[in-house]
Amino acid sequence: MHWPGKITVREVGPRDGLQNIREFVPTEKKVQMIRALAAAGVVAIEAVSFVSPRAVPQMSDAYEVLAALGDLPGNVTLSALAGNLKGMERAAGSGVREVVAVVSASETHNRANLNLPVERSLEVLKDIGAMAASAGIRLRGAVATAFGCPYQGEIPEYQVKKVVEGMLAAGMGEITLADTAGMADPRQVYELVRKLSAGYPGVAWALHFHDARGLGLANAVTGIQAGVTVLESSAGGLGGCPFIPGAAGNIATEDLVYMLHRMGMETGVDIDGILGCGRMLEGIL
Amino acid sequence: MHWPGKITVREVGPRDGLQNIREFVPTEKKVQMIRALAAAGVVAIEAVSFVSPRAVPQMSDAYEVLAALGDLPGNVTLSALAGNLKGMERAAGSGVREVVAVVSASETHNRANLNLPVERSLEVLKDIGAMAASAGIRLRGAVATAFGCPYQGEIPEYQVKKVVEGMLAAGMGEITLADTAGMADPRQVYELVRKLSAGYPGVAWALHFHDARGLGLANAVTGIQAGVTVLESSAGGLGGCPFIPGAAGNIATEDLVYMLHRMGMETGVDIDGILGCGRMLEGIL
Repeated sequence: MHWPGKITVREVGPRDGLQNIREFVPTEKKVQMIRALAAAGVVAIEAVSFVSPRAVPQMSDAYEVLAALGDLPGNVTLSALAGNLKGMERAAGSGVREVVAVVSASETHNRANLNLPVERSLEVLKDIGAMAASAGIRLRGAVATAFGCPYQGEIPEYQVKKVVEGMLAAGMGEITLADTAGMADPRQVYELVRKLSAGYPGVAWALHFHDARGLGLANAVTGIQAGVTVLESSAGGLGGCPFIPGAAGNIATEDLVYMLHRMGMETGVDIDGILGCGRMLEGIL
Repeated sequence: MHWPGKITVREVGPRDGLQNIREFVPTEKKVQMIRALAAAGVVAIEAVSFVSPRAVPQMSDAYEVLAALGDLPGNVTLSALAGNLKGMERAAGSGVREVVAVVSASETHNRANLNLPVERSLEVLKDIGAMAASAGIRLRGAVATAFGCPYQGEIPEYQVKKVVEGMLAAGMGEITLADTAGMADPRQVYELVRKLSAGYPGVAWALHFHDARGLGLANAVTGIQAGVTVLESSAGGLGGCPFIPGAAGNIATEDLVYMLHRMGMETGVDIDGILGCGRMLEGIL
């Protein structure tokens, strides 16, 4: 059985968590939360998204949040989600060093999320990739609804592969498989990761789970067994998808880190610090 | 990776769940719930315990509950927990065909639970075993706090083995490893099950988890990977341990069954039926 010694926990609460909160969280509170996460030892933080401020007003201060965090230590990587080429353009002007671009494996979800057919999104990725390259920004991809879609049900493997190939063509070296709708099961996770790792060697895979029906951590475990060493989670288990009604929150960072430490895996993250972030978040919301 | 085609789900809600409820649940409600579980396709149900009615008044009608269920179909196995020789004696007079005897791997928890040192409990097991044999009752064992104890912390493997050996000496062929305190992690589960399976071939192992910090189903998955095909759970996630303050409930049968079915494993259990049991339980409590 494969048990790695070290796992990178990428905190997505400031982005995936906050985007679902209607009431605008003041910029300084966002900054305070991201600083607290970094202080708790989190070295990868998905901090903001550059998407339409009309669609997601919560993220309209993405530029200001990043600007206020310019003094974070160099070992902390902040990333920004870019929804389209315009988002990438804004990201490029923000000084952020890492950008993530999302495309859904599900046609229906991609139209709901990006207002484009998958095919068209994959073409856009190339432009995003070119812009990231010229701006010296590390670009990574995230395949939404990789394990199932609430609209389309099961997602055949070829649909995931199609998006993966589009991401590789756009120059991405790291790809997150996201269970946007909380439909993944541990066996499916293990098998899909193994197949994709074998089919696309050299890609760094990450996993993003929502904790529907208590399966979140079980999915994380079999993902790790299949070789993944980057897992995304959210302090306090915040999160969901604005285009999936009733979507469960992300797996909670404190639970994930507790489990990983119990299994003898290093994360560098301090659980008490994360619990503090959760309480801070409660205070903010 | 090992993924069995079939898992037996043993419902422990009527025993492990109800024992933590202070208000006495009328006998006919208990009977109604067990009938509903059987109707939902559950073929293994831990129905009652024969323990001191002063210590656990909720279980004082164990005999009556079993008597009222004499007409359940033959493929449904009801079991009763016996706390000591007196409990075994009462079980033998009740017509029940399967009894489970518990001993803790933790000295402190065993004294809290059975008021005896572990060594003495293992001697009592022999008498319980002899009585079960002469009554034609199938006796199985459960090792409490097999993965950790809130009083003693980590439980060294030799303490688990000591209890396992006592159970084998008492003639038991099936042993449940119980994470009474919700301290197990998925790697520990995998490794302990593998070691015990190798060390004691021929024993049928079962696993019993409480869902502390969301790790319950993850532990179930690695237990299955290690070869276990009997898992205990509780409709609605009821349960806990009266001697461990704040203990988390059992893993929820509906979540476990959902996950197993998603992974392509048969259980024979109907999720809607279990959800109905959960609602019935809410109505009762």
